[in-house]
Amino acid sequence: MTATRPPADPAGVFDWLDVRSAARARAGLTRRLRPRAATTGALDLASNDYLGLARHPLVRAAAADAAHRWGAGATGSRLVTGSTELHAELEDELAAFCGVEAALVFSSGWAANLGALAALSGPGTLVVADESNHASLIDGCRLARGETEVVPHADPTAVRAALADRTRRRALVVTDAVFSVDGDLAPLAELAGAAREHGAGLVVDDAHGLGVVGEGGRGSVAAAGLAGAPDVVVTTTLSKSLGAQGGAVLGPRRVIDHLVDTARSFIFDTGLAPAAAAGALAALRLVRERPELPGRARAVARELAARLRAAGLTASEPAAAVVSVRAPSPGEAVDWAAACRAEEVAVGCFRPPSVPDRFSRLRLTARADLTPAEIDRAVEVVARTAPAAAVGR
Amino acid sequence: MTATRPPADPAGVFDWLDVRSAARARAGLTRRLRPRAATTGALDLASNDYLGLARHPLVRAAAADAAHRWGAGATGSRLVTGSTELHAELEDELAAFCGVEAALVFSSGWAANLGALAALSGPGTLVVADESNHASLIDGCRLARGETEVVPHADPTAVRAALADRTRRRALVVTDAVFSVDGDLAPLAELAGAAREHGAGLVVDDAHGLGVVGEGGRGSVAAAGLAGAPDVVVTTTLSKSLGAQGGAVLGPRRVIDHLVDTARSFIFDTGLAPAAAAGALAALRLVRERPELPGRARAVARELAARLRAAGLTASEPAAAVVSVRAPSPGEAVDWAAACRAEEVAVGCFRPPSVPDRFSRLRLTARADLTPAEIDRAVEVVARTAPAAAVGR
Ligand SMILES: Cc1ncc(COP(=O)(O)O)c(C=O)c1O
Ligand SMILES: Cc1ncc(COP(=O)(O)O)c(C=O)c1O
Repeated sequence: MTATRPPADPAGVFDWLDVRSAARARAGLTRRLRPRAATTGALDLASNDYLGLARHPLVRAAAADAAHRWGAGATGSRLVTGSTELHAELEDELAAFCGVEAALVFSSGWAANLGALAALSGPGTLVVADESNHASLIDGCRLARGETEVVPHADPTAVRAALADRTRRRALVVTDAVFSVDGDLAPLAELAGAAREHGAGLVVDDAHGLGVVGEGGRGSVAAAGLAGAPDVVVTTTLSKSLGAQGGAVLGPRRVIDHLVDTARSFIFDTGLAPAAAAGALAALRLVRERPELPGRARAVARELAARLRAAGLTASEPAAAVVSVRAPSPGEAVDWAAACRAEEVAVGCFRPPSVPDRFSRLRLTARADLTPAEIDRAVEVVARTAPAAAVGR
Repeated sequence: MTATRPPADPAGVFDWLDVRSAARARAGLTRRLRPRAATTGALDLASNDYLGLARHPLVRAAAADAAHRWGAGATGSRLVTGSTELHAELEDELAAFCGVEAALVFSSGWAANLGALAALSGPGTLVVADESNHASLIDGCRLARGETEVVPHADPTAVRAALADRTRRRALVVTDAVFSVDGDLAPLAELAGAAREHGAGLVVDDAHGLGVVGEGGRGSVAAAGLAGAPDVVVTTTLSKSLGAQGGAVLGPRRVIDHLVDTARSFIFDTGLAPAAAAGALAALRLVRERPELPGRARAVARELAARLRAAGLTASEPAAAVVSVRAPSPGEAVDWAAACRAEEVAVGCFRPPSVPDRFSRLRLTARADLTPAEIDRAVEVVARTAPAAAVGR
């Protein structure tokens, strides 16, 4: 059977994109890039630079020095020319910091998730995934080519049931540690318990937990008493608390060795640029030297949320450094974020399909280096510019 | 039905990895990371730094300067805080250089491929893919969630047949421009002809062509007379000729706008680090100022291949800067590469699953800045260390 064909005019091949674009415009879902200048007067409540380290003088200097010493790129796959001594040093120090046997650095957190999930599963594996997992975990499940069962958010009982009912021999439980949009914590200890009852591994994405959660910022898995467990694999990013770019997988040595041999997003991708590896390494050393920074980021988040709630807004109860504030609609969320921006307060604006539910919201990120005056200004501007329908619900 | 379960001892969950690892060891397929020092005496024939720009003083300085000015990371998604003026400048100059309407920078070439393929296809689309495509295009097809038909290598007739027989309304033809392992060129003009006969779009991965192929290194698509075509989308990387890290999609404005709104590896990934963007931009400007560099890289590749063939080896006929030399077996390929390395000549070694066929090989990359003495040394060492079975076949 042959369906109707679009016209063979080359100029018409992508006409369908205009139809989609118009539909997104009607739904208030068009996105725009807003390139920023190197220095702006804006107060940053939108980045994931939770500890304020991306621009720390020592982090900048380490990145710049690495660019000078090593060049602008890694020049090849980590398996060919793309592994430098910097990558090895970063892997050793990340593993020691998180209390695991070994670590492997990828070019992004996104690549770490895709690589780890596909390499650790396959046709013989059931992957049990939280419905609110990050897009990179979802795409990792799609690439895993096993069976994926999506379970309700933060629900160890549902995980247990999925594991018990499975027909596949092996299983992985996969979850964000700190959910990226609302900042809530996964019940990691209970999930590990469920996984253990059923012989499953646990893969935890701690992108928003490393450097923020746990003693000295050692992460959500350490905070749950699971650091170094033989059945737990942690993925993370170097682009949030560590202020750089790149990702990592942390876990038992045999898991890391398996990824070196089989993870497609590791083998077929150019290694992380030396400047990013050096920046992340410098940031990691700063976190070790200043173990009070993670607690400070969490305290700022709790203060922001409490004061926004006091102003009548619906704000999340932050367990990490993310504060989510409910907006009435995608269009009002965009307008609200724009009004904040007009007052030089940068906030994130999350709409479908970037939200786990149908609700658009502002996403404010706390930083360890926000001053009391900056916190005052943030609360005042966000509350004053709120759409009427966002208040008092 | 419930299958037999592995024991619930957490230490046993990843036992299966050891079984896999032992099987790979028996097959000679274990991979090892070899972190390199910042300066080595080794002659580099293994990286993808085709123009020798990764360590060019202006490229290093641009990357270092950006790390100082902007910090070590982009601090968020390109849609939140991760777009800097540097990203916009790089996108504008890349688009102008390649003769297309617009460009979009991703954190890697791998992410560019996954994002573009998934965003431009879907359930209503047939993707017709060359069997030798790069792993990132293959994974992109897997994420596209439409139908993929894999066709024989470089075969426009097979592409035409697949398009004619399709039941899906839309179609994309997807190919590497320069195949990464052997360095051969796709028949792009013929593939575009086949796509046009059947109302399909053409997606070309020019990772190994940008900066190497075409007038002044404008790439394989420009060389095929297809620059700026309304039905052609180009993906590429900033990590090879441009010596940095990152990737890009280049094409009609409406395609780029669609990716901003929908490409998951763009939306849900931290923006490329400023140092990498600045390094790639500086390299691009150098390519524009020195239009002889790409031709020089190609000439070096042809010379290497001719002289290795004269020494009795089976070397590819290079159309770009990649020279592939056949090895008798995975184990002998590894030993051969190690013997070269022992003589301070770094070469790539490709084995299953990184090869399009079952043949392991050495992969030598030409660089525009190789001197005649370095070329002599490369040929001498590779030929002298060759396993007996590699010669005279
Ligand atoms: C939970 C989570 N995982 C993974 C990632 C991907 O990390 P990266 O941006 O380094 O690719 C992100 C954010 O970008 C994230 O929020
Ligand atoms: C043909 C091809 N496409 C895409 C990529 C991915 O680019 P990157 O390494 O920048 O992720 C590579 C190599 O790494 C490649 O060889």
